[in-house]
Amino acid sequence: MKSLGQQIVAEFYECDCEVLNDPQQIEEIMCDAALAAGATIVTKTFHTFSPHGVSGAVIIAESHLAIHTWPEYGYAAVDLFTCGDTVQPEVAYRVLKEGMKSRRASTMEMKRGQLEVVGELTHKPVELKQAV
Amino acid sequence: MKSLGQQIVAEFYECDCEVLNDPQQIEEIMCDAALAAGATIVTKTFHTFSPHGVSGAVIIAESHLAIHTWPEYGYAAVDLFTCGDTVQPEVAYRVLKEGMKSRRASTMEMKRGQLEVVGELTHKPVELKQAV
Repeated sequence: MKSLGQQIVAEFYECDCEVLNDPQQIEEIMCDAALAAGATIVTKTFHTFSPHGVSGAVIIAESHLAIHTWPEYGYAAVDLFTCGDTVQPEVAYRVLKEGMKSRRASTMEMKRGQLEVVGELTHKPVELKQAV
Repeated sequence: MKSLGQQIVAEFYECDCEVLNDPQQIEEIMCDAALAAGATIVTKTFHTFSPHGVSGAVIIAESHLAIHTWPEYGYAAVDLFTCGDTVQPEVAYRVLKEGMKSRRASTMEMKRGQLEVVGELTHKPVELKQAV
């Protein structure tokens, strides 16, 4: 099914807690991931929380990458949102997994903006009398 | 099931195309949505694409809101990622829907970082002989 965007929802467990709590490293890993995937970075913002945790987003020409880390749980939530065919989000995923030293991770892929499906389903199902 | 974060994936169709293509309005609506939901904005970044489209992220103390708009399709993809119980993402959703004048929208809710489920499922199911 065609869609405007593609989103990989990634869960990184059992990461290196020190990496997760280092805003500079997290920003570097996120930018490395974007570039390795073939994306063009246009702007970014990161924030360090007290007492711990980093949140940030990298806006790319092909959408965005967002991260939230919970160093106390060794967990990071990452969203890789892309559009077009030039970016390889699975490459970004691997860079992130390696960079945060995650020993267990999972992904889920979603299609976003399925105009063909949602936008054009204006017809009604075949009526019973026609189907018989 | 307990989780570290909650994410509402929202699809806004049939929006006002002029709003979707106005970076200032999109930024305002996103910030209004965050504040109305009870979130604390810590940083934000927005980018306008050529020939059209706006992408942006608002990092809140309780995670983030991210948006991508396709004015040519009247469509916007929004992610509302929150943690804790103080933010009401459904309020943000309503502010966004009204602000972009979306006539058709859908949401999907995801739990992120389900440590209890994924991290602690180390036991085996009850064995057959015990169950009988």
